[in-house]
Amino acid sequence: MLESELTRTGNPSSLHASGRAARRVVEEARERFAAALGARPSEVLWTSGGTEADNLAIKGLFWARRTHDPGRRRILVSAVEHHAVLDPAFWMAEHAGAELVLLPVDSDGVLEVDALRAELEANGEHAALLSVMWANNEVGTLQPLADVVALARRHGVPVHADAVQAVGQVPVDFAASGLDAMTVSGHKLGGPGGTGALLARRGLELTPVQHGGGQERGVRSGTLDAALLASFATAVDEAVAARPTHAPRVAALRDTLVAGVRAIDPTAVLRGPADTERRLPANAHFTFPGCEGDSLLYLLDSAGVEASTGSACQAGVPRPSHVLLAMGVDEDDARGALRFSLGHTSTSDDVAALLTALPAVLERARAAGLAGSSSARVGVA
Amino acid sequence: MLESELTRTGNPSSLHASGRAARRVVEEARERFAAALGARPSEVLWTSGGTEADNLAIKGLFWARRTHDPGRRRILVSAVEHHAVLDPAFWMAEHAGAELVLLPVDSDGVLEVDALRAELEANGEHAALLSVMWANNEVGTLQPLADVVALARRHGVPVHADAVQAVGQVPVDFAASGLDAMTVSGHKLGGPGGTGALLARRGLELTPVQHGGGQERGVRSGTLDAALLASFATAVDEAVAARPTHAPRVAALRDTLVAGVRAIDPTAVLRGPADTERRLPANAHFTFPGCEGDSLLYLLDSAGVEASTGSACQAGVPRPSHVLLAMGVDEDDARGALRFSLGHTSTSDDVAALLTALPAVLERARAAGLAGSSSARVGVA
Repeated sequence: MLESELTRTGNPSSLHASGRAARRVVEEARERFAAALGARPSEVLWTSGGTEADNLAIKGLFWARRTHDPGRRRILVSAVEHHAVLDPAFWMAEHAGAELVLLPVDSDGVLEVDALRAELEANGEHAALLSVMWANNEVGTLQPLADVVALARRHGVPVHADAVQAVGQVPVDFAASGLDAMTVSGHKLGGPGGTGALLARRGLELTPVQHGGGQERGVRSGTLDAALLASFATAVDEAVAARPTHAPRVAALRDTLVAGVRAIDPTAVLRGPADTERRLPANAHFTFPGCEGDSLLYLLDSAGVEASTGSACQAGVPRPSHVLLAMGVDEDDARGALRFSLGHTSTSDDVAALLTALPAVLERARAAGLAGSSSARVGVA
Repeated sequence: MLESELTRTGNPSSLHASGRAARRVVEEARERFAAALGARPSEVLWTSGGTEADNLAIKGLFWARRTHDPGRRRILVSAVEHHAVLDPAFWMAEHAGAELVLLPVDSDGVLEVDALRAELEANGEHAALLSVMWANNEVGTLQPLADVVALARRHGVPVHADAVQAVGQVPVDFAASGLDAMTVSGHKLGGPGGTGALLARRGLELTPVQHGGGQERGVRSGTLDAALLASFATAVDEAVAARPTHAPRVAALRDTLVAGVRAIDPTAVLRGPADTERRLPANAHFTFPGCEGDSLLYLLDSAGVEASTGSACQAGVPRPSHVLLAMGVDEDDARGALRFSLGHTSTSDDVAALLTALPAVLERARAAGLAGSSSARVGVA
């Protein structure tokens, strides 16, 4: 980003020399990005991030499909999707005449393929689109996308997958996946914030969500930034190239982390599949009985370990994760959720530091949980 | 951008130390940004650019207003708005039950206030919103926003202004303007690409266009980037602070440019107000009879002068500018449009270089125009 583009100016839509130079950078970035993900350059639609790409997929597919066939009103999404998929889907149901179908998952967070099959057999001709994430952002579960795509194709239903968590952790090949659309985000894999893309297979109709100057073949308007996009493409390229060594390395760290946590607290429950082949290598998610995840987060943070509860805590009101609830975890247990994510800079010393800090953190969190259990529930609807 | 934030990581929505540090950077940026534009920090909604902010204003205001009063379906916009306003408005008319009212402008591109008054008197109770840009991006015309706001207020109609071109060129004070919403973009004033904001006065209801994690008080979801936003706020701060010296300096260059062009080609017509107080200081827009703007653009570019035709040339099909057509310029004359923009790095040598190159460029463009005039029109609907 610094080396190549940040100090140049030039609007890639302008026709003069600076504009054409910026356009070349953007198109070279598009080619590298597409090649890293098994897509064609013409299938890349640049967006401002994963959230915008998910919105474009859900809304754009629904509106485009409904235009051709008003009977196709059902939006099928797994119950464990990211809010960037769920919230557009809910909104389309409230405001745009969609019927929302939340597909169930099992206790590991894996989509119930039989339920999808039954839904498609009963209502396939009314389905506008299907969105199932490649890998879950909270519990790391990989979804059975090949089965999903095969079923949907039989009923002529386009499939979108949010692959924000997957790229750089598991092999992702857009063409081989059979997906119609796929979301990628920059900041999750070392790229700059404010970058994302929707891959959309050739011929897929998408109604724009952001209208204006007609960039990105009229599907996504807005001035493109050469510096951001060149950097995004480089990050994806490097993350994909590094994956064969990166994934086993963080998986080994993850295994040490999981074994260590279990040894410290045998009551801790690993959420998501126990089979490590069916989950992201960099993710470990636990619920700790009798603890508030927020307490654990803050206590670990004081010890220099940055974790996440895995649920959106908006306006200071802790809500149990919709992902855990969909997996059948009860509300009390779901409150004790803590997600650990490993990255390129993570080391075995980091894991050791967590395991050293954890016993005292759990003790203090449980003491606080007992003391505050009545008031802690007041804020929850 | 480089000094402070680009090498740190941290999601401003995360609760751990890195997340809180990023949040502080974002909120400090919000305070500086708001202070530079006469707004409150709570009135700033970060977006990915001017296009997204315009989309949020038009669609968000319409949907929010319609929810409360289904009778308010009319979207009033000036006929010379940027496509980032016009295209959302057209789309809402085609897909969301809106009635689009294009308000006329005079031959200088100034909104016909009498036409707005008549529209509001006849249909004010059916108006959902009004959008009139602060300054036109092609011909530089400043709009009579005080009159617009006063009229709209009488009828309870919220007013949005696209101020992308205005900030840093003319005084812009959101509170003093009486506007309900205002669009700002980063890359137009030296900030990074991929940054923008919608200022929305407190209490203004906006339906989100981008749904997800609930950032920006639920109105605009998507992970915020501290580096981009800190840089954006600094750019706005500096552009506003520099304006008292920058604006007269580029206005003087602009006056030299205009006088020089007229001396070289007395048939050239300056578009937009002749009164320099009623147009942007950094903009000069001409139509050159008997020329194609694209030819002028490419010939000047070869001479090292980067100009713009001022109209979107998508897919290689030159279309006459909707702005010029709305001003009553006929199609043939509109094809000869060329816009010159001056910036912080522009010098009198740059203007001299243009004026040196222009005579030969005009001669060649006119020769090409005569030779190609029949075929040049084939591509135009």
